[in-house]
Amino acid sequence: MKGLFISIEGPDGSGKSTQIKLLRDYLQNKGYDIALTREPGGTQISEKIRNIILDKENKSMHSRTEALLYAASRAQHVEEIIKPALKENKIVICDRFVDSSLIYQGIGRGLGIENIYDLNLFAMQDVIPDLTLLFDIDMCRAKKRKENRGNLDRLESEKGTFHEDVFNGYKKLKDLYPKRIKTVRANGSIKQVQEEIINIINDFLEN
Amino acid sequence: MKGLFISIEGPDGSGKSTQIKLLRDYLQNKGYDIALTREPGGTQISEKIRNIILDKENKSMHSRTEALLYAASRAQHVEEIIKPALKENKIVICDRFVDSSLIYQGIGRGLGIENIYDLNLFAMQDVIPDLTLLFDIDMCRAKKRKENRGNLDRLESEKGTFHEDVFNGYKKLKDLYPKRIKTVRANGSIKQVQEEIINIINDFLEN
Repeated sequence: MKGLFISIEGPDGSGKSTQIKLLRDYLQNKGYDIALTREPGGTQISEKIRNIILDKENKSMHSRTEALLYAASRAQHVEEIIKPALKENKIVICDRFVDSSLIYQGIGRGLGIENIYDLNLFAMQDVIPDLTLLFDIDMCRAKKRKENRGNLDRLESEKGTFHEDVFNGYKKLKDLYPKRIKTVRANGSIKQVQEEIINIINDFLEN
Repeated sequence: MKGLFISIEGPDGSGKSTQIKLLRDYLQNKGYDIALTREPGGTQISEKIRNIILDKENKSMHSRTEALLYAASRAQHVEEIIKPALKENKIVICDRFVDSSLIYQGIGRGLGIENIYDLNLFAMQDVIPDLTLLFDIDMCRAKKRKENRGNLDRLESEKGTFHEDVFNGYKKLKDLYPKRIKTVRANGSIKQVQEEIINIINDFLEN
């Protein structure tokens, strides 16, 4: 088989990190070579960009600056990590990718999904996920999980309707890319969610 | 009069910094309110981005990452410094602006002028220079002046045809935007160059 690119999307606190590790273990046991990565970050240069984006000191950051920094970090990540891994026929599992930008900057910041997609096409070139798992979770629950962790970064500290807009954005995205994006009902137990993911993945690998 | 936006472009070592200060003094003496700024940089956030771009450690930086970082830095600069100064009816004099990206990333890095212009439209919105002074200087002379200063950054250390491509790019740009871009013959003495600039500026202010 050729390399496969899976991105994982969904609000913070929806259990993505736990499920990504379980998915990696499952696929490794099946004999696949896995590359685990995340955004924003994934390379040394991307981490430096990530630090600027999330630093609470940078309160005056304009939304267009933010969108361009995410795209810059992604360009480096694609070139340095994702492209080479796909060339080596690995399954790349990426915690957040372009859809996070479409939602957070396109909808949350009101810059428009189409504008943000255009920027990101420049960054990604032809490296677009083959499959995206979208974690769907009750908004209040995600918020509570996240708050329990404490120490929120600049984006997590946003007030007002920002997080509600983001939440509704995930639903809009699913309608835009119904073939690529598959919803995971993330309200269940760890085991229930894991089983749902494995079913989606096996369906995808068979077809 | 309404605020006026002047950008200064040309290779490193073409004498831009000296002439910018002389131009500021000249216009201040005529009673204008001047805001002096530069790219990449100009704001605290832009300076942090500038540090990533120019850090020699970041040798693995992909050209698309570089182009997006310049655009991000510009978006912040426009929003935080240039727009407010223009609203206060100031004359903004900016050392390097969008044309540097069109040349260094569009031509020098081979990403295409049009692609880079599209990115930058997102960053600049409608804040485009009213007048651009393009310093035209003998390439060898600029190189020598620059080398004499020593301690070259990541872009200045580029080898091969990069700087030659950039140099030829300036000429191409002049043909693309003949109304906005005025050439300054920068090979002369400081006084000669200053006089040429003052003539261009006075022509522009009268019309």
